[in-house]
Amino acid sequence: MPRYAFKIEYDGRPFKGWQRQTDLPSVQGTVEAALAKLQSDVPGIAAAGRTDTGVHALGQVVHADLRREWEPFRLAEALNYHLKPAPVAITACAQVTEAFHARFEATWRSYTYRIICRRAPLVHERGFAWGLRGGLDVAAMAEGARHLLGKHDFTTFRATHCQANSPVKTLDEIWVEAVPLSAGQEVRFHLKARSFLHNQVRSIVGSLEHVGSGAWAPDDMRRALEACDRAECGTVAPPEGLYMTGVGYPMDPFTDGWRDR
Amino acid sequence: MPRYAFKIEYDGRPFKGWQRQTDLPSVQGTVEAALAKLQSDVPGIAAAGRTDTGVHALGQVVHADLRREWEPFRLAEALNYHLKPAPVAITACAQVTEAFHARFEATWRSYTYRIICRRAPLVHERGFAWGLRGGLDVAAMAEGARHLLGKHDFTTFRATHCQANSPVKTLDEIWVEAVPLSAGQEVRFHLKARSFLHNQVRSIVGSLEHVGSGAWAPDDMRRALEACDRAECGTVAPPEGLYMTGVGYPMDPFTDGWRDR
Repeated sequence: MPRYAFKIEYDGRPFKGWQRQTDLPSVQGTVEAALAKLQSDVPGIAAAGRTDTGVHALGQVVHADLRREWEPFRLAEALNYHLKPAPVAITACAQVTEAFHARFEATWRSYTYRIICRRAPLVHERGFAWGLRGGLDVAAMAEGARHLLGKHDFTTFRATHCQANSPVKTLDEIWVEAVPLSAGQEVRFHLKARSFLHNQVRSIVGSLEHVGSGAWAPDDMRRALEACDRAECGTVAPPEGLYMTGVGYPMDPFTDGWRDR
Repeated sequence: MPRYAFKIEYDGRPFKGWQRQTDLPSVQGTVEAALAKLQSDVPGIAAAGRTDTGVHALGQVVHADLRREWEPFRLAEALNYHLKPAPVAITACAQVTEAFHARFEATWRSYTYRIICRRAPLVHERGFAWGLRGGLDVAAMAEGARHLLGKHDFTTFRATHCQANSPVKTLDEIWVEAVPLSAGQEVRFHLKARSFLHNQVRSIVGSLEHVGSGAWAPDDMRRALEACDRAECGTVAPPEGLYMTGVGYPMDPFTDGWRDR
């Protein structure tokens, strides 16, 4: 059966996360239901990463084995038609070899976390960013974040129910960007690694918020990391600010397919 | 009675426009209901511009006369508290003299219109931009837009039910900005004038879309303008892409007040 890779964007608000669950709306269930409109049986799909309730994606990647051959553009158009009105869209599609696996072949994942600092409640960004009423010291957060770069035991920044075999991960990138707004200031955290532990990004951002607000010194990030103790983590940042932005592979699976430009 | 000026941000989706209407949700009605929580009688409020159903604001300006003196920051905080959960927020507040009038003293208004071009349906920007499935030629639209700069009879770009005394307006700025997206491309139109006719921005953007898609030549904007005939206007762009971004006065009313930073 021919295998297809898809790049998927979704608004996490109406879903109980990526993974299919009985009687609860999930992104996986929504995409599988759209695929089921194209053939009699529903193919199972594998995703590069599972996102939690309320978490967004701009660049989730999945694969599925279909019964017949499709022209990638037509397949994406058919799926986008059947996905309506759910806030889920296919933005790239390509036929790939059976050697491709969206999860096991991924060499990096990237996430962005958005915080908006202002006194007024969020309006257009409600559900799309973490709203904080106080300001944040971006330089202090950048200094604190640097302690996390490289290979570490990230037990402190890992959900207690995380199922990964090892808490040791290599964080390849973490940078903090300040974006001016017409009212208030936005801070974006960009992280990249081969793979992440469950709640790792939200645990890191919630701890960096402690640094930005002045409750922690930048060096407290190092102290928390070295403690290898979940109790040393700051607050876990809420899901609405988190976006899965991209997934990398040894070769870009979409090069010869269709992508939205 | 002391007079206060407010800068207001709102998500236009749940409202039947700015103006108060019996039994229909409006932004004006929502703000007045919040003010009514602060004193026994509801003060009437005057806004710099009336926005239509579904149109957004980042920088609407209004004024109201209140029964007692308020510290501007406390007044904004109290209003933001009472505005919840409506997607409306006060982002600046100041006490002003009785000479200040949000509508009659305004020297300019600015609007931004957002189009997102991509095959896939909009996800995070649904209701916040006009989604088009084809691409747009930004350079051609910029060339077409230049014909509208300056003082003209804008009858072509005016709603038939517009109540302004004269169709002659001076367009001080109109520029077209291309913003790359992870999937597709965003085009933003920035317009500034002392005042606008009803539906003027949406009529101009809908006509420029004809230029961007190739249906019109850039010079057809001049032809349409000079015709002074509503029938020569392109499609009126839908409300969800339109944002009222700012209002100018001879002196910034918020200089000595509170503003969200």
